[in-house]
This record gives sequence, structure tokens and C-alpha cells, in this order.
Amino acid sequence: MKSVFRVAAATIALALFAAPAMAAEKVHWKLAMSWSSTLTPFVNAPNSVAKMVEEMSGGNFTIRVEGAEKHKAPLGVLDMTKGGQYEMGHSASYYWKGKDISTVFYCTVPFGMNADEQYGWFYHGGGMELMAKTYDKFGVMNFPGGNTGVQMGGWFQKEINSLEDLKGLKMRIPGMAGEVFAKLGVNVTNIPPGELYTSLDRGTIDALEWVGPAMDIKMGFHKIAPYYYTGWHEPATELQFLVNKKAYDKLPAEYKTMLVTAMKAATADMFIDNFAGSAEAWSQMQTEFPNIKVKTFPKEVLKVMKKASDELMNEYAASDPVFKEVMDSQLAYAKKARAWTNISEYNYIQTLQELAE
Amino acid sequence: MKSVFRVAAATIALALFAAPAMAAEKVHWKLAMSWSSTLTPFVNAPNSVAKMVEEMSGGNFTIRVEGAEKHKAPLGVLDMTKGGQYEMGHSASYYWKGKDISTVFYCTVPFGMNADEQYGWFYHGGGMELMAKTYDKFGVMNFPGGNTGVQMGGWFQKEINSLEDLKGLKMRIPGMAGEVFAKLGVNVTNIPPGELYTSLDRGTIDALEWVGPAMDIKMGFHKIAPYYYTGWHEPATELQFLVNKKAYDKLPAEYKTMLVTAMKAATADMFIDNFAGSAEAWSQMQTEFPNIKVKTFPKEVLKVMKKASDELMNEYAASDPVFKEVMDSQLAYAKKARAWTNISEYNYIQTLQELAE
Repeated sequence: MKSVFRVAAATIALALFAAPAMAAEKVHWKLAMSWSSTLTPFVNAPNSVAKMVEEMSGGNFTIRVEGAEKHKAPLGVLDMTKGGQYEMGHSASYYWKGKDISTVFYCTVPFGMNADEQYGWFYHGGGMELMAKTYDKFGVMNFPGGNTGVQMGGWFQKEINSLEDLKGLKMRIPGMAGEVFAKLGVNVTNIPPGELYTSLDRGTIDALEWVGPAMDIKMGFHKIAPYYYTGWHEPATELQFLVNKKAYDKLPAEYKTMLVTAMKAATADMFIDNFAGSAEAWSQMQTEFPNIKVKTFPKEVLKVMKKASDELMNEYAASDPVFKEVMDSQLAYAKKARAWTNISEYNYIQTLQELAE
Repeated sequence: MKSVFRVAAATIALALFAAPAMAAEKVHWKLAMSWSSTLTPFVNAPNSVAKMVEEMSGGNFTIRVEGAEKHKAPLGVLDMTKGGQYEMGHSASYYWKGKDISTVFYCTVPFGMNADEQYGWFYHGGGMELMAKTYDKFGVMNFPGGNTGVQMGGWFQKEINSLEDLKGLKMRIPGMAGEVFAKLGVNVTNIPPGELYTSLDRGTIDALEWVGPAMDIKMGFHKIAPYYYTGWHEPATELQFLVNKKAYDKLPAEYKTMLVTAMKAATADMFIDNFAGSAEAWSQMQTEFPNIKVKTFPKEVLKVMKKASDELMNEYAASDPVFKEVMDSQLAYAKKARAWTNISEYNYIQTLQELAE
């Protein structure tokens, strides 16, 4: 009896006073990503969350991050999180537009807000509340999960000088942007990422859109297409952390805050990773391929694209009151936010551009 | 003996298996801010860090946040963190330029990088390493602590149409920007914040610079000065978390990650708080005072300001090799980062402005 008590006393001392600082509930989660484990900087966000919560909990709360190469269901991430096979997912909200069209607003929409403005809307313009409402029916919670900033409009073999040049053009461009381009007569196709380079190189397609320099450079498009168009279609692509609601509710209060805090920190980090990666990659592309020409679509073309985009959005709004509610909320917020962007961030860069002339 | 053992066994069970999830080392810190406790959104960052670490540690790691109204030493925050009276501080790095001129680069400099670019430099351009080197001699660690984005150039009673209009103008504008303006013949003064409104109203000064709409609106300047100039002087004012190195080293590993993660999350939040607050306040100012005119200094004036700023920076660089090292690092990074900003964030807003014309 005496020796048992000694062991017990020693354990109490260990648990309450000595290192490790915490004796905590063991929680082991799994997270499914819509991308392969090598797709940086997207994967940085979930990997970083896993690392942070593990460290903060002294190894007691762990999250195993699995890429699409393992679970084989890149577009099954919402369902798998909903079903509880995975407690978490890392994906992009616009992948679920077939389930609920209003999900696109929690990712990005053509001619929409930039990242600063969109975060303003999420946290101070009612966005988080609307997002919770949209996702509640899936039994999952949704949190911002990193952002690409303004995506480039894509790589083109030929210059686009008029609407005529878009007619019949074969282009890989998914989502709402593809729907807009289709309205303008573009022959929109979808091609698996692994076949994109060959398709562009062999002329199976005339143009394609990917992300931006940081991610495009690994695909090699800059070696085979001379025109790099500026963006209009995905001005602030927000990735997402999906969390199974029941699993979250079961977490100790400490782990809940660890998870939410880590997601916020990782989200901010991923935006910077991508910004810095694009700055670096763009510099490298220009050095190695000095003939790449950055182009913006002509105003005439952009006007028709904007009109087509507005029509498309209004069509969805007419048939879906939730879509309309979120759209109206974003449009009202964007108006205020853009007025501020115009006289602050935008005006500043403009001032420096003019000084450099 | 038997009853003692029962108590011991119960305690073990409580510590290892039941709620609360953690039994952790008690750590109680204090943080001194350079501002009063009411100065939102600056104070949001440290308050939020304190809340997050307390929740994550189950109340075991607490940080008491104290405003300048309590410790009475707004510009003593670095010394008090160094000396250990406070384990942490929340301030702005350019306040310490009298101790080490290179500290300005970890806050903001005239005509410098915007927030995205500066975070790129901190995390991917060697900024964090240079910052650690600068602050190591004080025995403190320095972390980003929130950002105001591009600050407005200030409120003016008269329009500035030429360099002549600046000569003899009495203006409150501190720091490097004040030094630049002084070179242009501005009569630069410093006035305590509490006296600014009256000074501008009574004509003791002709102009003043504060922050941006979110913070300016509470000062009321928009009611008494018709011209609101766009910014050039503080394009990305980064606040700072100072942490006493010895205190940090003594933290359990879990608390270290909690603190660093919370600081990152709070830093991102504060930027958004300020962006959203400015969007809201600017909308309100325009509604209530429709005659406010937003102006950008004429190109002729900006050119001379830029030249004066470059001269000032080069003078510091000539006499301080560390200043030169950090300046060169920022200039090289800014070149790459700005090339990317120009074709992404900037081009996008420009495209939408042109479409709206």
C-alpha cells in the first residue's frame, strides 16, 4: 500500500507542478484536403494549424492532414467532414456551388471584393454570420482558410484585342468565370491539372487560367504562352477550413480557442506566403522569359464581361433568395469598402507609379 | 492511510482524465501599452492576445494589459519591457528611433512598402531576422502587432497647390514624415493629442496628420478642416509586441506557441478592424460632411517630398551601417513586391475604377 501511494503522489506532482506544463485530454483528428499534399502554399494553412495546436496542447490535440492523393476524393471534402469520417476539411467554398449556390460568396466572385475588403465583410459586415447560416445545414462550421489575393486572368497564346478574339477561343477556366466567358462565346472546357501544360503546348486549348505566379511557375505555362492577362474573375479566392460541428462541440474549451486561433494565424500566413511567392516567381519569370507580356483585357471587352457577370448573378438571385441576401450584403459592403480602398491602398500605389514615370 | 490514498487517486483522475482539460503551470504577465486603454483599434491587439492565451491555457497563462493612463510612461514601454517591470509591451517601433534609428523600418517609412509587401518582407524577405538583430541588444523580442494600412496625409485648412503653399505652414506631423516636411519649409510642431482639435480649430496650426478615418473620426477633425490629403508618409504603420526575452525563455513550450500564435491572429484581426472601421467612418464622414475634399498632393510637390525623403534616408545610411543594411534589404524586396502589387491588387482596382467611369 505504501509503495502504491508513493507512485500516486509522484504522479500528482508530475501532473500538477512539473513539466510538461499540461496534462490534457487526448484528441486526435483527421483533416482532408481538396488538394494533393504537395500543393503549396495552399497546404501550408492546414499543416500549420496542425503544428500549432499540437504544440499548444503539448501533443495532446493532434490533427492528421491528408492530401487528395490519399483519400482520392478532392470534391468529397464537404461530405466527408459532414459525415464525420474527417473532423476537418481544407477546401474552397465555391466547389460546393452545386449543393448551394450561395457558397460562392465565401470564396470569391467575378468583379468582387479584394482580400482586405472581403475580410472586412467577413468580420465586420455580417459575412461570418451569413456563412454560418449557409453551412449550418451541412452540420459543419466554416472558417476562412487562406487567400490567394487577386488571381491572374490566365495565359493566352494570342493577344485579345476585341470581343471577336474571344469567340470560339478554347479556354480552361472553371466556375463563375467560366460561365461568364461562355456567355461571351468562349469555348470553355475543363481539363485535369496534370494535362494542362500539354494541352496548352499542343494547341488543344488556346488559353487557361490557373492562380498566379507563385503557383503558375511550377506548372511551366510561362514557357509556352506569351501573354499573361491580369485578373477580374477571382479577386480574393478565400480557402476554407471546414469543421464538423459535433466534433467541435465536444472539444474542451481550451482546444476550441486553440483551433480557432491557429486557423486565423494560418490564414494570415498563407496569404503572405502566396503574396511573397508570387513576387518572387514573377521576378524569376521576367528574368528567364523577358518576352512575357502582361496585358489587361480592353475596356470594351471588360465592360461586356462585367455586364455578363452582373446578369449571371442576377439570374441566380432571382431564383434563390439566400443567394440574393448574401449578394446584396456583399454589394452594400463593397461600396463602402471600395471607397476607402480607392483613397488609401489604391491611391498610394498610384501616387508612386506616377512618381516613377 | 486508506482515505489519504483515495484523495490522491481522485486527484490523479481529475488531473489526467476529466475536465478541465489542462492542469498547467501558472504564469501571470503584465503588458504595458503606449496608448490609453480606450484607443481602439490599437488596443484590440493586446486585449485579444490576453483573451486568447487565457482561454487556450484554461486560465493558467494570463496577461494583464495596462494602458498609458495607468503606468504614465507611453514612451517608456521599451525600457519597462527590457527591465522586466512588464513582460510585454504594445507600441510602435519608430518610437525608438532615438535609441536606434533602424527601428523605423519595422514600423513604416515614407514612400515605403504597403502592408502586404511589408509582411512579405518580414516573413520571406529577411525582415524578422533583421528585426531580431536590432532588438536583441535590448534583451527583448519584437513581433508584428497590428497594422493601420496606408495612413491619410492629414487634414488641411487650405489646398496645397504648390511648394510655396507648404512654406511656413504650421503642421503637426511627427517622425520621419515631419523631418521630410521640415526640409520643404513646413513649420513642423508636435502637440499633445488632447490639444489637437482646439489647435486646428483656433488656427494655432494649419494642418495635422493623425491616422485614418477609423481613428480620425473620434477626434472630430472632419468637422473643422475641409481638405483630407491622401497618404505618402506612413503606408503601413506596423504596431509591435515587445516581449522580454528572459521571461519568454522561461515559458513552457506550449505557452510560447500560444503566445506567438495569438499575436499573429491578433495582428491580422487588428488590420481588418482598422480597415473596416475606416470604411465605415469614411462613409459616415462623407454623409455628414459632404464638402470634405479628398486631395492628393500635386506631382511637383510629391517629387520634392520623395527627393527629400531619399536624401534623409541616405544621410542616416551614411552614418549607420545597420540602418543601411535594413534599408537596402527593404528597397530590394520592395522592388520585387511592388512589381507584383502593380499587376495584381493595383491593376484590379484600377480596372474596376475605369469600368465605373
